[in-house]
Amino acid sequence: MKARFDIIAFDADDTLWHNEPYYIEARHELERLLSPYQPAEQVERRLFEIETRNVSLYGYGIKSYTLSMIEAAIELSGGQVSGAEVRQVLELGKRMLSAGVRLVDGAEATLAALQQEYELMLITKGDLLEQGDKIERSGLAGYFRRIEIVREKTAHGYRRLLESHGIRPERFLMVGNSLKSDILPVVEIGGWAVYIPYEHTWAHEHPDGEVAHLGYHQIERLQELPELLARLRS
Amino acid sequence: MKARFDIIAFDADDTLWHNEPYYIEARHELERLLSPYQPAEQVERRLFEIETRNVSLYGYGIKSYTLSMIEAAIELSGGQVSGAEVRQVLELGKRMLSAGVRLVDGAEATLAALQQEYELMLITKGDLLEQGDKIERSGLAGYFRRIEIVREKTAHGYRRLLESHGIRPERFLMVGNSLKSDILPVVEIGGWAVYIPYEHTWAHEHPDGEVAHLGYHQIERLQELPELLARLRS
Repeated sequence: MKARFDIIAFDADDTLWHNEPYYIEARHELERLLSPYQPAEQVERRLFEIETRNVSLYGYGIKSYTLSMIEAAIELSGGQVSGAEVRQVLELGKRMLSAGVRLVDGAEATLAALQQEYELMLITKGDLLEQGDKIERSGLAGYFRRIEIVREKTAHGYRRLLESHGIRPERFLMVGNSLKSDILPVVEIGGWAVYIPYEHTWAHEHPDGEVAHLGYHQIERLQELPELLARLRS
Repeated sequence: MKARFDIIAFDADDTLWHNEPYYIEARHELERLLSPYQPAEQVERRLFEIETRNVSLYGYGIKSYTLSMIEAAIELSGGQVSGAEVRQVLELGKRMLSAGVRLVDGAEATLAALQQEYELMLITKGDLLEQGDKIERSGLAGYFRRIEIVREKTAHGYRRLLESHGIRPERFLMVGNSLKSDILPVVEIGGWAVYIPYEHTWAHEHPDGEVAHLGYHQIERLQELPELLARLRS
């Protein structure tokens, strides 16, 4: 059967540009900073627990991460962390916020090729200011007809988003690195999805339990996308 | 001349619900917390300076404010602030994030009356998650045909927003408590604006220099809005 999608939406973080490595690097710096108090594995474990607990209140993004790192520093040091050390955590966060945007290999060429034939969208979740800044600095904004920064990527959220744009799911294909946020909810509502695993996909993004659906395609690199789409549509 | 606007957009914070008092209260608690180190006026002054310096990196909202309060605490204590004190600042922020939404007097009745005759929009700036949560918890979401959470409220931003919805400025009326964000940019692009000053309008929201334009209306309370609009349209 010939596929009829004509709108392709991309996730941003760790799909078009690198994101998770900056979080991992900041965590390693926190581990070094807290090494007088606790071993690195303990810092990693507690930071993850604190982040998970805070996500409903703080949401995603660098400011949330910075606040959770500060909370972890206080807790893991038994309250002994110094003002100078907390300032270093603040600085880690500021450095992340002002870091350049490093595109995934072939990101721009892939978008340039696909925009000839498809209408391109960007759908990313997270902090409005942080994501907006990255989109601007990426130099990729011009490839997208529509850009949506959303709070959560759920089946309900995708359904509402597509409705608001008057797009039927069978015309819609989503590309991303998160099974939980980019792939499974889109498959659930009857859309197309292409999964491109990222080397360091964040633990929060792994779906709970077994993956029951298989209605998506998987490639190893973004650059393989045009060829896959050509095959699906031929 | 009979006014022809048929779309009314509302600002949210300090227009439909109280916001600034929570920031002021948190600042007073910070002043108490830092009273062993610095007098209150000094805390207020430095916090404001730090917030202003951070706004381009952090944006608006409670998480940004919390990070600036922590930075102020470290600086104003000469690095002597304790882990327990920093934890109290984190707690101040979390309390703000989970505070209830307290509507401005008559907010719901005013929207209920106006939606009979106009299409209502909500246009607010700030943190996507925080604003989204407040809109949900306010119980007012159902009154708005369109809800937009934007990064900045500038003339350029309003123009782009109205274009994306296919709305001509002369059909559009904005209601808000900030001359700088809600009133002057809308007047600039040829829209209508109603200014309702809020008791504690945030210093960042005062426009720089003299107000050159006068093409807007002013009332003292949200409840006076239906009567003003009826007069303008008659």
